[in-house]
Amino acid sequence: MKGLFISVEGTDGAGKSTQIDLLLEYLKAKGVDVIYTREPGGTYISEKIREIILDTDNEGMEGACEALLYAASRAQHVREKIVPAINEGKMVICDRYVDSSIVYQGVARGLGVDAVKAVNEFAIGGVMPDLTLFFDLTVEESVKRKKNMGSLDRIEKESFDFHKKIYDGYVALAESDPVRIKRIDASKPVEEVHAQVLKVLEGLI
Amino acid sequence: MKGLFISVEGTDGAGKSTQIDLLLEYLKAKGVDVIYTREPGGTYISEKIREIILDTDNEGMEGACEALLYAASRAQHVREKIVPAINEGKMVICDRYVDSSIVYQGVARGLGVDAVKAVNEFAIGGVMPDLTLFFDLTVEESVKRKKNMGSLDRIEKESFDFHKKIYDGYVALAESDPVRIKRIDASKPVEEVHAQVLKVLEGLI
Repeated sequence: MKGLFISVEGTDGAGKSTQIDLLLEYLKAKGVDVIYTREPGGTYISEKIREIILDTDNEGMEGACEALLYAASRAQHVREKIVPAINEGKMVICDRYVDSSIVYQGVARGLGVDAVKAVNEFAIGGVMPDLTLFFDLTVEESVKRKKNMGSLDRIEKESFDFHKKIYDGYVALAESDPVRIKRIDASKPVEEVHAQVLKVLEGLI
Repeated sequence: MKGLFISVEGTDGAGKSTQIDLLLEYLKAKGVDVIYTREPGGTYISEKIREIILDTDNEGMEGACEALLYAASRAQHVREKIVPAINEGKMVICDRYVDSSIVYQGVARGLGVDAVKAVNEFAIGGVMPDLTLFFDLTVEESVKRKKNMGSLDRIEKESFDFHKKIYDGYVALAESDPVRIKRIDASKPVEEVHAQVLKVLEGLI
């Protein structure tokens, strides 16, 4: 029995972490065999790559280098952790996956959606999520929330315009693939957002 | 006035380092404005990526991850160091470049030459060496020399078969692009190999 691969996407500050915690709690109480993982990272090698990506010392990092590091981290992650878990029949909840690269590097960094997709096809070898939850929150709202987040990493520190491009990129992506990508209105109160997530998952658990 | 970009390729133990040292000494004595650099590495960020690639702790690294890390390191290196130097009219001598990825990951790791080439095209953005020196030494000879090299990194530790594939990959590559890639018979004594290098460079300096 093959498991289920769910990725979680959205701008920083859209409430992904809170909602993932609630979802994991719910699933575990239901007895679902679920694992949580995140990108960039998720394995020993991928976490080392994550450190390079997010280190604020590395401000001079070129967009192409950044995109390839995310892809490298993902190549290791999907083969070492995600695929084995799915093959054991587990549910995998992954905080960010290939869509993040498409909007962050392809759209916001201007490297081109097709070029970043091609690099990522090499990285993931055809392993796409069965379902993607897109936490939809306008950049204006995200910025307000991020003010309470304390210290920011290299990507979070980017400008408002950068994050606006990311948001627009996600909206376009969600419209292009409505079967896989489900929009969750993340502007609502926490419990209401959680209810929307469960509604999307209905029938899959 | 645009500079000259020369890459140096070959199996481990083929004597690249010794020959690069001799060449740099020769060029500097001639008053040529030359810089030496190497891959993976060559910049602050690329050297950090190099550490992950070569760390013997990372034995479980997937081929696709490795290929993408080399490409990431190269993307930073070519934009931050190689292109600016060429644009200043300098000669750049680079120990390993894109051909290494084609033979190490594309051929020896079995990821496919076309796939690795495509990822690297994204990485280098069209910047290819004007000239490549391929130090041609059979694997049997390389192994003999490596026995005197002391501790080996993660790539150097690979099997004889792996290095045989690399050698065959280089030979095929050199045959496919004889204008750019010049074969140097690396089995000869050091001074004789150096003379072959100078002969290839004749007219370019």
